[in-house]
Amino acid sequence: MRAARYHDRNDIRIEDVPEPPVQPGTVAIDVGWCGICGTDLHEFLEGPIFIPPSGCPHPISGESAPVVIGHEFSGTITALGEGVTDLTVGENVVVEPYIVGEDVDTGPGEAYQLSKDMNFIGLGGRGGGLAEKIVVERRWVHPIGDIPLDQAALIEPLSVGHHAYVRSGARTGDVAVIGGAGPIGLLTAAVLKAEGLTVYISELSEARKQMARSTGVADDVLDPRDGDVAERIRELTGGRGADVGFECSSVPVVLDMLLDAVRPGAVIVNVSIWGHKPEVDMPKLVLKEIDLRGTIGYSNDHPATIALVQSGKIDLAPFITGRIGLDGLVSEGYDQLINNNEHHVKIIVDPRA
Amino acid sequence: MRAARYHDRNDIRIEDVPEPPVQPGTVAIDVGWCGICGTDLHEFLEGPIFIPPSGCPHPISGESAPVVIGHEFSGTITALGEGVTDLTVGENVVVEPYIVGEDVDTGPGEAYQLSKDMNFIGLGGRGGGLAEKIVVERRWVHPIGDIPLDQAALIEPLSVGHHAYVRSGARTGDVAVIGGAGPIGLLTAAVLKAEGLTVYISELSEARKQMARSTGVADDVLDPRDGDVAERIRELTGGRGADVGFECSSVPVVLDMLLDAVRPGAVIVNVSIWGHKPEVDMPKLVLKEIDLRGTIGYSNDHPATIALVQSGKIDLAPFITGRIGLDGLVSEGYDQLINNNEHHVKIIVDPRA
Ligand SMILES: NC(=O)c1ccc[n+]([C@@H]2O[C@H](COP(=O)([O-])OP(=O)(O)OC[C@H]3O[C@@H](n4cnc5c(N)ncnc54)[C@H](O)[C@@H]3O)[C@@H](O)[C@H]2O)c1
Ligand SMILES: NC(=O)c1ccc[n+]([C@@H]2O[C@H](COP(=O)([O-])OP(=O)(O)OC[C@H]3O[C@@H](n4cnc5c(N)ncnc54)[C@H](O)[C@@H]3O)[C@@H](O)[C@H]2O)c1
Ligand SMILES: [Zn+2]
Ligand SMILES: [Zn+2]
Repeated sequence: MRAARYHDRNDIRIEDVPEPPVQPGTVAIDVGWCGICGTDLHEFLEGPIFIPPSGCPHPISGESAPVVIGHEFSGTITALGEGVTDLTVGENVVVEPYIVGEDVDTGPGEAYQLSKDMNFIGLGGRGGGLAEKIVVERRWVHPIGDIPLDQAALIEPLSVGHHAYVRSGARTGDVAVIGGAGPIGLLTAAVLKAEGLTVYISELSEARKQMARSTGVADDVLDPRDGDVAERIRELTGGRGADVGFECSSVPVVLDMLLDAVRPGAVIVNVSIWGHKPEVDMPKLVLKEIDLRGTIGYSNDHPATIALVQSGKIDLAPFITGRIGLDGLVSEGYDQLINNNEHHVKIIVDPRA
Repeated sequence: MRAARYHDRNDIRIEDVPEPPVQPGTVAIDVGWCGICGTDLHEFLEGPIFIPPSGCPHPISGESAPVVIGHEFSGTITALGEGVTDLTVGENVVVEPYIVGEDVDTGPGEAYQLSKDMNFIGLGGRGGGLAEKIVVERRWVHPIGDIPLDQAALIEPLSVGHHAYVRSGARTGDVAVIGGAGPIGLLTAAVLKAEGLTVYISELSEARKQMARSTGVADDVLDPRDGDVAERIRELTGGRGADVGFECSSVPVVLDMLLDAVRPGAVIVNVSIWGHKPEVDMPKLVLKEIDLRGTIGYSNDHPATIALVQSGKIDLAPFITGRIGLDGLVSEGYDQLINNNEHHVKIIVDPRA
């Protein structure tokens, strides 16, 4: 079958690889669509980061580069391994793309995303969504009912937003402020809006401000160049400040703005991945008794996330800004996201086209 | 009556001031003992900070320098204002030294420590504990039963530790790591120990390591010069890491150590007050899903804190390292804490001596 494999920085190849065998307890899937993510670009431009470099096998998967990539994907079940009885061939699904230890409990309430040596299918081995087929353990497979396969490719990043929402402890009626309207900021906003929050987004890019407006995920979009964002959030909340903040930019001034824009006693969830140790306004964190919470991936978020889409509370269609085939992965997909990033949310790839 | 008044930086005077009148709803107290706190030293050396400078009245108290100082005190009730019926003349008490707006709700569960323009009795006006007498609103007065008045002067900083404990959500059996064994670190440790936690303290100073050991508040005292503290905490916890961390040093490497020493999903409470914006290991906070929580003062912590002392679970006597009279406040008290700080925890002042 055809697959995109990461060999090294700047070296991704579309190659013919053997089809993965169906094992007991696994599910075979024909991939429908697979999204390209900022993480994929980081691996391409600056990696390997999550990807185990050639010769350094990952402690759980045992694999190293070259590996099949792609972790945001949907597909259709083509076969069920021995012992898998609660799914049906022909059913559409998404994959929660984790690699965790065999003994790690992934039941309700378990924080398996924090388990030792955790990595992702499509980065750390075990195949990926940028291939025609994949076989994964039953526990990572989530049925999606009638959600179209193209939109379903966005359920993985939407689950990141859902987990950030869960981490925040936010409730219906709360006011949220989000820093950054990239894919993660926008999809987090979509979850918050669906959960009945008032959502304000701060963003610099014209195209992304426009996207935040046109998708309806924000009650208002603020530009830091138009005046102090925290001040305006206070005005919009009758002097109080937001109940919860989400850092989705990995820009230090945005984290500072959030610490300023939330009310005393508020929660700020840091979704962004930092490449360095930023200066943080700890004096404000202390005097306002703010909770600054990290969030990584998702854990048991997929079912609730899928339900939000299936119920129509979230429409993922507007976030798809490009569709390409596997051969165009780098020349069209990565290239657009590197050079024309602000005009895109998600470019999705059909690995059969 | 005699009182210590802050006029300006480096200008504290022992003066004769009028006795405060008893008003309806207030309680008149003869001060027993009053502790000296790091905050007092900051005001003296670098202030005014909390203290409203001369000519700039505090929005709630309406007062500005000179003001009577001292916010960590105990005393005996000498008179009750009209309407105060649930206290007795002759009863020993401590004061929760807040200045908050008239309309601020201070009932259970209310976060009045975060209310607008909050300040402290003994800094922002309304008298202080470094005077023979004080009159305070009923709501700030907490009976202490048979706790000796000298030890009771330490209930205010102990309540800071109690509030940090409450903020952490720690539970009996949890493992805590505390960075810094100054008065705040030690008293936080005392609360944690009384609440049934295992407590490890990291500290550089020989004298303070000794104090952490001799008071029995720590299960082990670690010195960063003897090897990586986080590594040793992991060894002591079977590879897991601590459940909860407390930053009590305002030193950036200590916060980094805590982010390293706690387990994934842990809580770190930042108790220290930062004079600048430190670099924070946000990558670790995100990947380990750590909650970093600010804490300021106390709110509804005094009754539980007093109960811990009254039940004998905390013995405050060993933390008193000096006793002086009012005239010696600067020459003996401040001077010792500035030049011989690590050999002291609390120096307490008898305003009548
Ligand atoms: N925690 C997780 O599990 C997880 C998962 C996926 C991605 N991430 C991280 O989330 C972050 C966001 O991802 P993304 O793909 O949306 O990134 P992105 O770079 O596309 O989006 C960041 C946005 O912030 C905006 N921005 C920059 N400076 C700003 C400012 N001063 N004020 C307001 N907005 C500003 C940019 O214009 C951009 O639109 C990244 O750090 C990514 O690594 C985290
Ligand atoms: N949040 C609140 O409500 C509140 C209330 C009172 C005080 N505080 C703050 O709490 C902090 C602690 O107060 P304190 O009076 O105990 O201060 P302190 O300066 O006496 O104690 C700090 C301790 O940290 C130790 N230390 C320094 N570097 C270290 C290192 N690398 N490793 C280990 N230990 C190290 C010092 O030796 C010292 O013993 C201060 O910042 C103070 O302003 C906060
Ligand atoms: Zn992704
Ligand atoms: Zn104090």
